Amino acid sequence: MAEKARRNKLIFRPHFKTHQSLQISEWFREKGISKITVSSVSMAEDFISGNWKDITIAVPFNIHETDQINNISSDTNLNLLVDSEQTVNYLNKNLKRKLGVFIKIDAGYHRTGIPVDDYKTIDIITGAISSSDFMIFKGFLTHAGETYSKQNKDDILLIAEKYKRDLYILKSHYSTKYPDLIISYGDTPSVSHLEEFGCIDVIRPGNFVFYDYMQLNAGVCSFNQIAVALFCPVISMNKERNELVVYGGAVHLSKEYLIDRSGNKNFGLVCRIKNNLWEHPLEDTYLKSLSQEHGIIKTRSDIFNQFSSGDFIAIIPVHSCLTADLMGMYHTTQGELINHLRNNHLHSV
Amino acid sequence: MAEKARRNKLIFRPHFKTHQSLQISEWFREKGISKITVSSVSMAEDFISGNWKDITIAVPFNIHETDQINNISSDTNLNLLVDSEQTVNYLNKNLKRKLGVFIKIDAGYHRTGIPVDDYKTIDIITGAISSSDFMIFKGFLTHAGETYSKQNKDDILLIAEKYKRDLYILKSHYSTKYPDLIISYGDTPSVSHLEEFGCIDVIRPGNFVFYDYMQLNAGVCSFNQIAVALFCPVISMNKERNELVVYGGAVHLSKEYLIDRSGNKNFGLVCRIKNNLWEHPLEDTYLKSLSQEHGIIKTRSDIFNQFSSGDFIAIIPVHSCLTADLMGMYHTTQGELINHLRNNHLHSV
Repeated sequence: MAEKARRNKLIFRPHFKTHQSLQISEWFREKGISKITVSSVSMAEDFISGNWKDITIAVPFNIHETDQINNISSDTNLNLLVDSEQTVNYLNKNLKRKLGVFIKIDAGYHRTGIPVDDYKTIDIITGAISSSDFMIFKGFLTHAGETYSKQNKDDILLIAEKYKRDLYILKSHYSTKYPDLIISYGDTPSVSHLEEFGCIDVIRPGNFVFYDYMQLNAGVCSFNQIAVALFCPVISMNKERNELVVYGGAVHLSKEYLIDRSGNKNFGLVCRIKNNLWEHPLEDTYLKSLSQEHGIIKTRSDIFNQFSSGDFIAIIPVHSCLTADLMGMYHTTQGELINHLRNNHLHSV
Repeated sequence: MAEKARRNKLIFRPHFKTHQSLQISEWFREKGISKITVSSVSMAEDFISGNWKDITIAVPFNIHETDQINNISSDTNLNLLVDSEQTVNYLNKNLKRKLGVFIKIDAGYHRTGIPVDDYKTIDIITGAISSSDFMIFKGFLTHAGETYSKQNKDDILLIAEKYKRDLYILKSHYSTKYPDLIISYGDTPSVSHLEEFGCIDVIRPGNFVFYDYMQLNAGVCSFNQIAVALFCPVISMNKERNELVVYGGAVHLSKEYLIDRSGNKNFGLVCRIKNNLWEHPLEDTYLKSLSQEHGIIKTRSDIFNQFSSGDFIAIIPVHSCLTADLMGMYHTTQGELINHLRNNHLHSV
């Protein structure tokens, strides 16, 4: 990803909400990365403690965290995200440090943001930002989240190309008034596939650091690119139903599922482990259901017969970000422990 | 629940996996409770550190945790759960402390356990247990987990009555050989409704300590009995779609949902907050979708207009156990902080 950004003269500002690990963040630094994205003020604080100095908090700003923002030392270059005049006015009154501000643009995902062609509202917000001594308008940030529900490269690229066209029109409209204006673009699926980025200046993929079953299913990555799995011990076996029950449930994997190619609700890919590495998924085998701490694996009788109580099975999570957040630490395949923020901070309220 | 157990001369062994809090565990002690249920060895260790001395680990035993079990001091009365001869034989060879053993019985849920009428397998397992110097056969444990998918009291009681009949036959069959044999029965939905417990000796409900939207939806509790909610700030508003976006996503609520009475996929009940208390759910309003850290609330225009950016909204979780586990702490409505194990232990691997 770093190489792709370099080739395209893009700023690579990876989203660290997927791994949430100070140790993994160092792997990025080794690739020359110095700018990062996070999804909460407390996550920003944690990475600042890991010596990251240029951070975009890519969630519409929660005004209750203004004091926390004011307390972040001025040697950290901070960017916030806004999508309302109200929030800008609040910041205008209460901010005590300089920071950059991106306007969140909605170009089709319809979660947050100002519609990409709503110049009237954008003008009001840029106007409010300009009237502040502390806020510097940086540009427009968007997230093509609708790519996550697509199943193949063509559908994903169709969305990405539409974003590129719409963002180009937006950028052209404002580039005279704001010649340094930045277009920041997110989402792992489209950034993984795109080779030409048009008017985009910054990319913010996060999930790609591990990928997962969802990305494999959508053709975004290959199986060998998936870099995280949950190892679960078999704790119960039912021969009549060809079911293996593992200790591994919703408190480890969350409750995300996919409908797989056979029409089954599947909570994770099921793989045999050999020499501490996971193999390709077992045929005719899927994670059928999850309760709080149990997972039920449905399989064929010949595969069932190869397992015993106590054996470990690897589950490739549907959504790696959620599983990493729940587990709160990592083991490498060499047995080294890797930290995760969950184990050294509380969610701020 | 404690009063109901007393009336019916039952042993009340509440499941602490819902709250996972040493402070909340003290509220149980004040009601005379001394025996508890947990769902992992590490959770047992945590409650032992909180001075609980009689603990049933109600998940089929994971043989990789035998050393941990051996290290638990003998002044703690420990019960394990097994559903295979293989596990019993492993324990037989590796156990270094005395403990009680329950056989997990499957009377219809089909997750783990020996079928309730499979005397042949039960005889093999009780035989293996009896040959050990360290294991004492305690009885049969079952969990009527299928009640969680029912929508009303009659359907739940139909299941519970079938369990009572099947467990009565099982108990009668073994009571000559094991006169002290205990029948341990779980699940919040049926224990909340049952008034007569028949042959049941022990009840292990857990979720009832908070209840949640799922239990309300199934008629198990009233709205006023729900004791937990997630307070989320509004961070984005879209007037055209009448949508309020809160900071509150899958990393706070998990991805559990219900199909509500209007046919909507609903990730949580949405309530206004007044004086730090939540009111009854807002009409025509629901939590439409969750991503990692965002929740989208769909509402009516007149309700939409009553909210501003920064307002807090209470979300009643679909499944309180998962939300409590994710949040890792509680605030009382008086603002007191209450601990949760998530903040002082790692998941054991």
